[in-house]
Amino acid sequence: MNSAPLGFFDSGVGGLTVVHAVQELLPAESILYLGDTARLPYGSKSPETIRQFADEDVRFLIGKGVKAIVVACNTATAHALPHLHEKYRVPILGVIEPGVEAALSSPEAERIGIIATHGTIRSHAYQHALALRKTGLMIHGQATPLLVPLIEENWIDHPATKLVLKNYLDPLVEKGIDTLMLACTHYPLLIPVLRELLPGDVRLVDSAKTCAEHLKKELTRLDLLASADREGELQLYLTDLSEEFEALARQFLKKSPGKIHRAVLGG
Amino acid sequence: MNSAPLGFFDSGVGGLTVVHAVQELLPAESILYLGDTARLPYGSKSPETIRQFADEDVRFLIGKGVKAIVVACNTATAHALPHLHEKYRVPILGVIEPGVEAALSSPEAERIGIIATHGTIRSHAYQHALALRKTGLMIHGQATPLLVPLIEENWIDHPATKLVLKNYLDPLVEKGIDTLMLACTHYPLLIPVLRELLPGDVRLVDSAKTCAEHLKKELTRLDLLASADREGELQLYLTDLSEEFEALARQFLKKSPGKIHRAVLGG
Repeated sequence: MNSAPLGFFDSGVGGLTVVHAVQELLPAESILYLGDTARLPYGSKSPETIRQFADEDVRFLIGKGVKAIVVACNTATAHALPHLHEKYRVPILGVIEPGVEAALSSPEAERIGIIATHGTIRSHAYQHALALRKTGLMIHGQATPLLVPLIEENWIDHPATKLVLKNYLDPLVEKGIDTLMLACTHYPLLIPVLRELLPGDVRLVDSAKTCAEHLKKELTRLDLLASADREGELQLYLTDLSEEFEALARQFLKKSPGKIHRAVLGG
Repeated sequence: MNSAPLGFFDSGVGGLTVVHAVQELLPAESILYLGDTARLPYGSKSPETIRQFADEDVRFLIGKGVKAIVVACNTATAHALPHLHEKYRVPILGVIEPGVEAALSSPEAERIGIIATHGTIRSHAYQHALALRKTGLMIHGQATPLLVPLIEENWIDHPATKLVLKNYLDPLVEKGIDTLMLACTHYPLLIPVLRELLPGDVRLVDSAKTCAEHLKKELTRLDLLASADREGELQLYLTDLSEEFEALARQFLKKSPGKIHRAVLGG
């Protein structure tokens, strides 16, 4: 048993989709979330810069006394997780392994499309993880860098978003994908539009739920679960505060995020 | 006479449109350009964060021995210029005054549209500067936050960009603007598409050229011009390096940017 909070970080507030899933599954856990809104996005930046940012994010969370860390950002998981594992002793989980497990949980998954930032696609982290688990898959990665800005503007139902999505999805549909992995924590907000634009038999995989299940298993294994007789709290830290981020946080979390604190990262 | 370089900074490589104009007008001047690509964009972030970033950018340039500084970023000019003037003695010029002067250089300018980031529009810096110089203007500011991501993806001629632009421009056209100010250093790349979408009698104002003229006047007044018998050099520093930024830099500068250095900003 351990009542210290779990630490989560992401480039912005998208990672709150993972927090939401964890709160549903593990309501006793307290959560400390860091969104690096001052430096977002991570997805268009270089591996070196993302590793440096992730390192500063982890140090902030460790400084707050967290018992384990979830990298609730696909780009940071893709580029920084191995480096973080080497450097820190605190348990650190990413979103890629859970996503891959969710995608392959259906034995019919044979032709897998992945949509994600430039950084995640370029890292080949998903492609490698999928290929390691199952041979003979057809895997198609598609960088979809305009989706985050469109979501952040709340243009989710806008004709321009549908046009951009069609442009990104058409090559995947032509390749006959049976599974589409939403490999960015922002993308769950697009699920209704994706359902509208994709053939009905394409399965959408969002890793938030599987990530929460992974976390539960790990916390149990390491004897780090909080006592079940209490209710966990959420503390939200952002490196830049604004009304827009607050409104987005509510959307991703599906409830009020409470008071938001400004985080200052030590260089 | 002073042969030290001029310092320029921007959130990314868009400010190179201003560098291009300065190189045309003042070929003897050496230029040291800092693009804060690791933390771009600035346009969606809070005034406090933008002031902090601008402060770090200026300190980097001063550390390199520049004789004067151009804030080649509309958002940073809007939120940080007065603060920078208070704090530093080195001459610092922004892009807003030159833009306003360019817009009002035609006596027919009566109904002025401004397209810019959320940050620039929200600051009301352009609106105030215009109203101070000429009474009775109709001024309409339109935040156009998706244009920078679309330009950075090089989707300049893409149908989605036209749809997004139409969405942004229609309210301005309905208000009968006679002048459209491109109040972001990225936007000059959109001029051909803007011409296609706007009525033929709307004048487009890009501040790069006027900014170069302002700079020349100031350097002359302060006796800081470089000796005319030499050829200036460009040194380009970015806080994050990538092939994409290099390709974009070439587009904005209209020639090869030469070797690009990585800048490390001291916190």
